[in-house]
Amino acid sequence: MSVIGKSEIRKDVRLKVTGKAVYIDDLSFPEMLWVKVVRSPLPHGLIKRFNPSSALAVQGIVSVLTYKDIPGTNVVPIVLMDQPLLAEKVVRYIGEPIALIAGEDRQAIEEGAREIDIEFEKLPPILDPLMAMKEDSPKIYGKDNIFSHHRIRRGNIRQGFEECDLVVENRYTTSYQEHAYIETQGVIAVPYEGRMKIYGSLQCPFYVQHAVSSVLGLPYSQIEVIQTTTGGAFGGKEDVPSLVASQAALVAFHTKRPAKLIYTREEDVESMSKRHPAVIDYKSGVTKEGYLKAVQVKYVLNAGAYSTLSPIVLWRGTVHAVGPYKCPNVKVDSYAVATNTVPCGAFRGFGMPQITFAIESQMDELANRLHIDPIEFRLRNILRKGDRTVTGHLIKESMELEKTLKKASQIGWKREREISNGYKKRGMGIACNYYGVGLGAGGRHLAKAGAWVSVLSDGSVNFAVGTTEMGQGMETVLSQILANELGVKYERVSMVPTATTQVPDSGPTVASRATVMSGNALIKAARPIKKSIMEVASKMLKSPISKVKLADGYATSGTKRIGLDEVIDKCFQQRKIMSSQGWYKAPYTSWNKATGQGKPYFVYSTGTNLAEVEVNTLTGEVTVKRIIAVHDVGKVINPQTAAGQVEGGVLQGIGYALFEDMAPAGGKILNTNFSTYILPTAKDAPEIVSNFIEDPYPQGPFGAKGLGEQPIIGVAPAVINAIFDATGVRIRDLPATPEKIIAELNSHHPTFIPLGRR
Amino acid sequence: MSVIGKSEIRKDVRLKVTGKAVYIDDLSFPEMLWVKVVRSPLPHGLIKRFNPSSALAVQGIVSVLTYKDIPGTNVVPIVLMDQPLLAEKVVRYIGEPIALIAGEDRQAIEEGAREIDIEFEKLPPILDPLMAMKEDSPKIYGKDNIFSHHRIRRGNIRQGFEECDLVVENRYTTSYQEHAYIETQGVIAVPYEGRMKIYGSLQCPFYVQHAVSSVLGLPYSQIEVIQTTTGGAFGGKEDVPSLVASQAALVAFHTKRPAKLIYTREEDVESMSKRHPAVIDYKSGVTKEGYLKAVQVKYVLNAGAYSTLSPIVLWRGTVHAVGPYKCPNVKVDSYAVATNTVPCGAFRGFGMPQITFAIESQMDELANRLHIDPIEFRLRNILRKGDRTVTGHLIKESMELEKTLKKASQIGWKREREISNGYKKRGMGIACNYYGVGLGAGGRHLAKAGAWVSVLSDGSVNFAVGTTEMGQGMETVLSQILANELGVKYERVSMVPTATTQVPDSGPTVASRATVMSGNALIKAARPIKKSIMEVASKMLKSPISKVKLADGYATSGTKRIGLDEVIDKCFQQRKIMSSQGWYKAPYTSWNKATGQGKPYFVYSTGTNLAEVEVNTLTGEVTVKRIIAVHDVGKVINPQTAAGQVEGGVLQGIGYALFEDMAPAGGKILNTNFSTYILPTAKDAPEIVSNFIEDPYPQGPFGAKGLGEQPIIGVAPAVINAIFDATGVRIRDLPATPEKIIAELNSHHPTFIPLGRR
Repeated sequence: MSVIGKSEIRKDVRLKVTGKAVYIDDLSFPEMLWVKVVRSPLPHGLIKRFNPSSALAVQGIVSVLTYKDIPGTNVVPIVLMDQPLLAEKVVRYIGEPIALIAGEDRQAIEEGAREIDIEFEKLPPILDPLMAMKEDSPKIYGKDNIFSHHRIRRGNIRQGFEECDLVVENRYTTSYQEHAYIETQGVIAVPYEGRMKIYGSLQCPFYVQHAVSSVLGLPYSQIEVIQTTTGGAFGGKEDVPSLVASQAALVAFHTKRPAKLIYTREEDVESMSKRHPAVIDYKSGVTKEGYLKAVQVKYVLNAGAYSTLSPIVLWRGTVHAVGPYKCPNVKVDSYAVATNTVPCGAFRGFGMPQITFAIESQMDELANRLHIDPIEFRLRNILRKGDRTVTGHLIKESMELEKTLKKASQIGWKREREISNGYKKRGMGIACNYYGVGLGAGGRHLAKAGAWVSVLSDGSVNFAVGTTEMGQGMETVLSQILANELGVKYERVSMVPTATTQVPDSGPTVASRATVMSGNALIKAARPIKKSIMEVASKMLKSPISKVKLADGYATSGTKRIGLDEVIDKCFQQRKIMSSQGWYKAPYTSWNKATGQGKPYFVYSTGTNLAEVEVNTLTGEVTVKRIIAVHDVGKVINPQTAAGQVEGGVLQGIGYALFEDMAPAGGKILNTNFSTYILPTAKDAPEIVSNFIEDPYPQGPFGAKGLGEQPIIGVAPAVINAIFDATGVRIRDLPATPEKIIAELNSHHPTFIPLGRR
Repeated sequence: MSVIGKSEIRKDVRLKVTGKAVYIDDLSFPEMLWVKVVRSPLPHGLIKRFNPSSALAVQGIVSVLTYKDIPGTNVVPIVLMDQPLLAEKVVRYIGEPIALIAGEDRQAIEEGAREIDIEFEKLPPILDPLMAMKEDSPKIYGKDNIFSHHRIRRGNIRQGFEECDLVVENRYTTSYQEHAYIETQGVIAVPYEGRMKIYGSLQCPFYVQHAVSSVLGLPYSQIEVIQTTTGGAFGGKEDVPSLVASQAALVAFHTKRPAKLIYTREEDVESMSKRHPAVIDYKSGVTKEGYLKAVQVKYVLNAGAYSTLSPIVLWRGTVHAVGPYKCPNVKVDSYAVATNTVPCGAFRGFGMPQITFAIESQMDELANRLHIDPIEFRLRNILRKGDRTVTGHLIKESMELEKTLKKASQIGWKREREISNGYKKRGMGIACNYYGVGLGAGGRHLAKAGAWVSVLSDGSVNFAVGTTEMGQGMETVLSQILANELGVKYERVSMVPTATTQVPDSGPTVASRATVMSGNALIKAARPIKKSIMEVASKMLKSPISKVKLADGYATSGTKRIGLDEVIDKCFQQRKIMSSQGWYKAPYTSWNKATGQGKPYFVYSTGTNLAEVEVNTLTGEVTVKRIIAVHDVGKVINPQTAAGQVEGGVLQGIGYALFEDMAPAGGKILNTNFSTYILPTAKDAPEIVSNFIEDPYPQGPFGAKGLGEQPIIGVAPAVINAIFDATGVRIRDLPATPEKIIAELNSHHPTFIPLGRR
């Protein structure tokens, strides 16, 4: 394990800090056209007239394309096949694509877009999901505007509540959250010798391959998708690049020229997916000893005009709807609802930050009302090995939530709480969470990954995987896993950009699955090569294979050692297998759709966030002073990148808790740039103490689970609970803006004294 | 075998005939620089002064580089490591690269090149290999100007000749032959995120990878070589693209911009490799019954200034120096000799057209002197299964030379010979040859190949191999092999361009090895995928696996059948392995360098060419009326591409026999374009009757051996023998130009009446 657990320097760091990384907008091709999307200005309407002739008359405009020009199917294939690439007769949200303008330069397409002549007939929009769910509402999807409905039924919910000593019931709401990737959506489609090559900033090349294939009506083999260095994604480049790529590809297909489509920040914010706003009705009941007896949840996501990934986002939220706690009686109903708003989709946490905000607010309130320390209260309820989740999954391995809770409390809970300056109140809050690693039973057929490893005759190593680097550090972590497995030096290993012609369909890069899935696939790919090296090293060292060890660039046996470069050269002389492919299938999962019972994920990461805040009771402003984030993610492959993931997640969680908000007026998002969409900056960053509990997951690569999504999930509730602790004000509508806090402080007399001040 | 043996339409035909194929000069990259090579005007000299300042002052010139700018090693690594990328102090041939000029466009570099200020000191050149071999000659390589020397020693040569009834001894000489690929050498080097990407017209991407790595001092993993559609190669893009690519890469490395280097036809002809001119002293002895008893050969190749592939070219010629005949007493000595001329290298036939011209001229002369029909004479001597070659190799399988000989004679030997018009004489000639498939013992460590196969969920199939398509039809033949193996339709299979990041080092694409090597690797790669498909099909058909057959896009069992697309979709649902890599090592070969004994190749293709010519005895002009070419290449995968290979080889062989010549004056090639270098055209094409003897080679893919080189080898001697048959004139100095024939006709009274007129 000489390379595992070491903070090796990120593989992508030099390129990125020296500006040599090639992002999609840095790339161009000769004869390349620029593409602009003509979008709907209405949340709901009929297209009555579309006349491109004035646009086509603009100098430099080459082509204007509508749905009529689609040679394949006018659908962006995701889950429900309801979303057209280009609107046909009806538009369903502001920003919906209607036509594509292609021209010689940016100026031409901007001018062309202004000249497009479209006439609409307005239709009444439905903007609120609860209104959309009403029986008498106008229908924009199916018979009930419901894209998806999931449920959990466990025990007897009525009886469960009857046995409770305390029942708390509240409505929680959350706002949109923008991914705020630094690099906006962008793709270049290049027709090349009969194939369509797609270069782009994206998470899931195989999704894009399928989408472009479907839209162009070409076989998968003729669509090659190559990921370019991707400047952030956070789920925002999971499903939507299928749309962007298909738009560019359609232009390239018709014009036979490369086509570049880079979204402006404004159109990206206006039209691309975001974290779903949620309405959560949460009812929890406990015994007076502090044991959860019953939980009933109604979880509604505003999915927007098309379903995209909403059914899956909703499913994950549903599975985790009770949090990492035991509870005998559970009833969960969840709904993804169609409205005439921008389609929401994947976002780090994937349906869990919303529900976890509700879960942990409830837990905090229950503890407070019962006068039980919130850590003690959680310790009475949390899942441990040998327990069953509310979906009936018996936890057998790698579940160390208790240790994260104890570690977090040990680091920070006992700290002297300063309540200084009179009007500046300090408080602490805590939140636990768990996270099913990988796609789970909801995406079982995608729970697979391929990898390719090629050791070259000079001892350098190339590998390729089907998952993508988007800033999260996958390339680094996988390089460490491979270097450790082969015994070569970390510096000798490099990753070839992810492309559909390098590896088989490995599913998407989401759900914290890359380390486990691609890591295991890489180890399997390395196996025959390792065998070659071991056989040759054994002969060179005159030692039985069983005694040969490969590490740090050497083959050793006892005191004898030999450089691996020499061994590898010999392997090549002997024509040994030095290149191979690996294939990994995730362990078994299951799900009963009617009861919500089963083993939805093969393993869970867990974590505890502890927040310390200072609330200015005169202005309502909240300053997060410290976040202690302790995560159980199995073996940590690279402590520095792991800490980086946590730090980024914490800040993103603080943004979700306090700042990030959108106020669509009549379905129109008004703050479409970062001057008005308020993100946390370095100045808002608290002291972040990250810590890891390393209980190895036996089926993970060297014991690793997944980490990517974990860090954001529990931050907002910890902060909200800390605000309550500081002020007695409980915010149930994210984000907790100064306005809301001041309003609460002025109107509200807290019934229960926060524990921190008892 | 539903796809094997069928004339499927070439995979590359549509792109090529519609002009959509992207050749290297069609490709460009933003910010790309143009590169020009500054070359030596002298065959031998010292560089006394090099001053780039005037060149650098030319507008648009960005950089002038010399050997001092090479960060790695100033060697183009091939066999002997003697060739610098850029000359340091000495220049050794006209056209030798000295410096690289990079500029914004073609005009700038042309002007810059004119401004380069170089002063040379002339050194006396050695231009003739026989002179160079003399003890007192000036030395330009080592102690004796000999790059390489091979030998065969078998039996007792002195005693062998003593037992002969007839001994014939002659000197044969051959000229240069130009590859005359339609597309000249060209490469673009693109620095991309720390890697160097090389796009180019080339045969051997792994050679280029190693060369660029060595010159730039970067690990192999950082050099990515992608073959672009290649407009002909014929061996001329085997070793030399390493030089061209390293030149472009050096510019890209220093300027950090893409660098394009396209050779003009003139510099390509002047400086790139060609078929070696040869001097062959050949002595053969027979009994009066017509059995070969002794052969002694001295085979000298003019290698030019650097060794390049000459040692290997020479080795192949040496191994085959007696032809496909039994002979108990053999002495062969062969030499590749350094001279101050352009370095020669690989060319279709690879050292064999030269020696085969001598072998078959001798055989013809022996038969004629013995008054034995030349076919009958060959039948007494040819190799059959159970015989040993002159290197001691016991032939066990797939050797059907006899059938080719009989088939050729059956088609054409008995044909009525017209001797019309008085001064127009008709004659027929015959030549046999064999060809060791693959690299043989001389390149044993390269005798390996990898392949990658990926079946996609819509049933389309991508594959990649490490060998290259250069017009020979490999892509088509391999697609057929893979389609047949998987049972999918030929149309569903497509090849991804060959690149070093797709597959492991698979050796070069030479020596008629692609079908056997990559074909077998593909079959191995398909194995786990076929297993997946069979398992799932077996369940779907409710039939044991042993009864399931895959063919023509269906899985069948008895009368039940199911579409493969459906089966493949199910495989994906079940996450079966549908992508895999294969690895094939060629069978055992051996070679004793001292005695020239061993098993140099694992199998041989064989063939017989029969030529019918008409000689105009007034002008000396020869018209080839008909070539009957019968080849034994194992199972023919695609009859149409096979016939195409034969037709191309025949025409190239006619060029070699009659037209193609270079007359270097003082080391300078004067005919550097196709207006003066005379190639056969469609008008010179005779009737070509191609025919195949299909004795399957058990270790070949579906029984195939190799075909690429075979067709050219025996053409020239058959033509030359036919000229003798027509006129009594025996030309021993290729090509047989009208001038030589007229001179012979005017001066020479044939001693022996040609058989045809007895």
